[in-house]
Amino acid sequence: MARTGTGRFFEDFRLGEELRHAPPRTVTEADAALYAALYGSRFPLQDARTFARRLGLDATPLDDLLVFHVVFGQSVADVSRNAVANLGYAEGVFGAPAFPGDTLSAKSTIIGLKENSNRKTGVVWVRTMGTNQHGRAVVEYVRWVMVKKRDENAPAPTPVVPGLAPFVPAERLAPPDGLAIEGYDLAASGDSRLWEDYAPGERLDHVDGMTIEEAEHMLATRLYRNTAQVHFNLHAEKDGRFGRRIVYGGHVISLARALSFNGLANAWRIAAINGGAHVAPCFAGDTLYAWTEVLEKIALPGRLGLGALRLRTTVLKDRAATDFPGRVGDGYHPAVVLDFDYTVLIPSR
Amino acid sequence: MARTGTGRFFEDFRLGEELRHAPPRTVTEADAALYAALYGSRFPLQDARTFARRLGLDATPLDDLLVFHVVFGQSVADVSRNAVANLGYAEGVFGAPAFPGDTLSAKSTIIGLKENSNRKTGVVWVRTMGTNQHGRAVVEYVRWVMVKKRDENAPAPTPVVPGLAPFVPAERLAPPDGLAIEGYDLAASGDSRLWEDYAPGERLDHVDGMTIEEAEHMLATRLYRNTAQVHFNLHAEKDGRFGRRIVYGGHVISLARALSFNGLANAWRIAAINGGAHVAPCFAGDTLYAWTEVLEKIALPGRLGLGALRLRTTVLKDRAATDFPGRVGDGYHPAVVLDFDYTVLIPSR
Amino acid sequence: MARTGTGRFFEDFRLGEELRHAPPRTVTEADAALYAALYGSRFPLQDARTFARRLGLDATPLDDLLVFHVVFGQSVADVSRNAVANLGYAEGVFGAPAFPGDTLSAKSTIIGLKENSNRKTGVVWVRTMGTNQHGRAVVEYVRWVMVKKRDENAPAPTPVVPGLAPFVPAERLAPPDGLAIEGYDLAASGDSRLWEDYAPGERLDHVDGMTIEEAEHMLATRLYRNTAQVHFNLHAEKDGRFGRRIVYGGHVISLARALSFNGLANAWRIAAINGGAHVAPCFAGDTLYAWTEVLEKIALPGRLGLGALRLRTTVLKDRAATDFPGRVGDGYHPAVVLDFDYTVLIPSR
Repeated sequence: MARTGTGRFFEDFRLGEELRHAPPRTVTEADAALYAALYGSRFPLQDARTFARRLGLDATPLDDLLVFHVVFGQSVADVSRNAVANLGYAEGVFGAPAFPGDTLSAKSTIIGLKENSNRKTGVVWVRTMGTNQHGRAVVEYVRWVMVKKRDENAPAPTPVVPGLAPFVPAERLAPPDGLAIEGYDLAASGDSRLWEDYAPGERLDHVDGMTIEEAEHMLATRLYRNTAQVHFNLHAEKDGRFGRRIVYGGHVISLARALSFNGLANAWRIAAINGGAHVAPCFAGDTLYAWTEVLEKIALPGRLGLGALRLRTTVLKDRAATDFPGRVGDGYHPAVVLDFDYTVLIPSR
Repeated sequence: MARTGTGRFFEDFRLGEELRHAPPRTVTEADAALYAALYGSRFPLQDARTFARRLGLDATPLDDLLVFHVVFGQSVADVSRNAVANLGYAEGVFGAPAFPGDTLSAKSTIIGLKENSNRKTGVVWVRTMGTNQHGRAVVEYVRWVMVKKRDENAPAPTPVVPGLAPFVPAERLAPPDGLAIEGYDLAASGDSRLWEDYAPGERLDHVDGMTIEEAEHMLATRLYRNTAQVHFNLHAEKDGRFGRRIVYGGHVISLARALSFNGLANAWRIAAINGGAHVAPCFAGDTLYAWTEVLEKIALPGRLGLGALRLRTTVLKDRAATDFPGRVGDGYHPAVVLDFDYTVLIPSR
Repeated sequence: MARTGTGRFFEDFRLGEELRHAPPRTVTEADAALYAALYGSRFPLQDARTFARRLGLDATPLDDLLVFHVVFGQSVADVSRNAVANLGYAEGVFGAPAFPGDTLSAKSTIIGLKENSNRKTGVVWVRTMGTNQHGRAVVEYVRWVMVKKRDENAPAPTPVVPGLAPFVPAERLAPPDGLAIEGYDLAASGDSRLWEDYAPGERLDHVDGMTIEEAEHMLATRLYRNTAQVHFNLHAEKDGRFGRRIVYGGHVISLARALSFNGLANAWRIAAINGGAHVAPCFAGDTLYAWTEVLEKIALPGRLGLGALRLRTTVLKDRAATDFPGRVGDGYHPAVVLDFDYTVLIPSR
């Protein structure tokens, strides 16, 4: 294999093919510090060693989304270098927590292919698995992307659209082994709300807004070693669809998670990504706000002191979330940029 | 306590109340590296392990102002989320040096309250204390801020204005215990000037100018987990007082300290903050210059090889400091943005 | 020596003088993480601990160019504070690999001086040596810069132009001692091309483009503690030659090296810098592309499993490298900003 940097086109993917991504990457305390400085994330498990130790951990684990982005980033050169759009996510499950010093590797299997009727593009479904240096899964997820064809006349593959679960079931939510949840320090999070204090249908305004700069989203996206040109190349993008660089969708997800500390300060772990849609692109200069609806409260049988919340976080561009704009009919309020469905773990009484 | 992110208004503060801030935060070698990359700070004690070891330290301590900003940042959500302006500092004393890996916690006590005559705002004085994971004080200071009222008709508290020392006295300047100052390596700092070589009234032009970018001050301010919206939210601030984001005042202080290496390369530690006024706001695109007047030379009885200098550093916007513009009558030269009074430790012969 | 920050002018340099630069600087894992986030560098030796361990190393070494920049940065205050232009490099040799935690010191010897005929400037040649805390050389190189005179009437020194090697000979290329090159994992680099797969005269398009932001090049240049004002001071530069800040030339070199991963993924070490010319300045907003010509294949007798390639990388501004524009007669294609001649190590079969 002589990787040239031009990437795969739609007709280069084969159903069932496994792609081992490269290079692997050691994620350090420094990556965690940069991540926090990029988003202002304040969850104490990732930010305070004293807090992590009370839970029985030797070190502060890496932010779940940092792990996701690093695994995602490795897959870009093989999967989405020539993607037009990142269409969706499903069946995302976080496994072993990752710690500074862990080396993360990634591989993907092609689980679906469907050419579009215009014959210029097709949709590729991949299941991506990230593992640590011991071979343990740290995150696994399905994503599907629209990829350009190199040659419009290339024959279409037999269409295969994988069946995907609408959400990750409770039995697949994996709290880290041996966590001493009784050591959870509410004073450290600064918020007393626990699992019992949230109700399905409840809506939380995360209040703050955060403006994105070009240097910030590019630093973040390079931190993840994501090489998609649309995020970095003004010279090419000025003649592209939007006339400018597009912010990596994962950057928007991480900003939303950091903003959600206002209202969800004890949601210490993302356990699953059930689904997500990048409704509209984001650009430098946009100010993002977020609000969350509690979709479901999930009891975790046999897990004392721990519950799960299935959440739907909506991210808005240049508009406060005070009145919770989101779905409108089959579409969205024009300010919506992200509709993200995920499940968090939170202490219970 | 259900922290929602909207913060306290003037009428929410009670004299004598103690606020325990959250979350605590472990400051690492990576925070130190980011800090240095943001300001270009070159003081060898913080930058070279070989230098620190000759002084008997196992590691390079964290920059004193990084410690200050992290403690300050923790207090913002409770104290100054709804502040109109940060009015002043006093009685700032640095205690135990902080090292990478230390976890810093902060709490504040309300020591003064005074409603303004317009009834729309009031001034809140807080004494903030930052401690490490062993409970030892790393920094303590008083600041006062003008905070909005939620309800103009809320009753005014009995005015209490605390008496504050005009400067930190010599006996409160605390050089780190057990420092082997005889190991101080002048060749490493590149400057031979010691305590004896400075004179009261002497003025030092720090020569260099540094331009601020939006991405830089936002990265810095998030590094400190400071959540004040005026620094981050272009969408809200475009309709605010200045039509744009305001640079965190502490960012200006840190830039000035880094610039002061030209002329004060051996001022290895900030021991005290005597006072400070943010004379005018700073914005992205501003180029900052700084100059310093030596206000006082302070002998440290019983401390062989060490003296202190009380300094007044003036920071200018878009104007070189060659001719030392500063105070003009009761006000300031129009280029002045910061008037900062602090005390440094410096080796003596 | 009382360093004031104004730096040396041409008439201040003396042939044979040795300048010990200050301060030294400990380079950490965090500097490496920031470096990677600034350029998106993906070479697995620097990025994956598992990869480094298979080669017999305890840790991932620092990127060779990060080491170069940190040594270069220390020299700026003494050598090029008042430089008009950085004219060239030669005889650059990388020695002991540097690892996180190493403290790098630098010194320079003045090896050439020649006043220009306009009497306003002169050229200074320096040989700069960077060493680690054990006194071992990590990098050594010659550079020459055009420096302003303070006083046009100052007498000209006797002109001395040092003879410099056109390229670093094979016997000076120093692969790290004790490297277990047989552990090199091709799957981790994702590219199967080895020394045998490249041919002299071959040209490689590195495909991707990367746009530079002000905040990025300033963060990078401060990371290196390089204090040259042209990179940082918009207020002064708006009236300067270009009306804006100039990107540090080393930033361009590092971007080119990161881009070269597409095509040269196994070129795990820069062994030598043979020469280099910054053909035109770069500014924020520029998008850089790069291509490389293989100049020479160098066998390394007695080094099983290892060969060297002498490369010439050409960097272009706002223009793709598809058709390899470069030298045109005595000059360059107008898009060229850097012509860089260096030698890399690469595994052989």
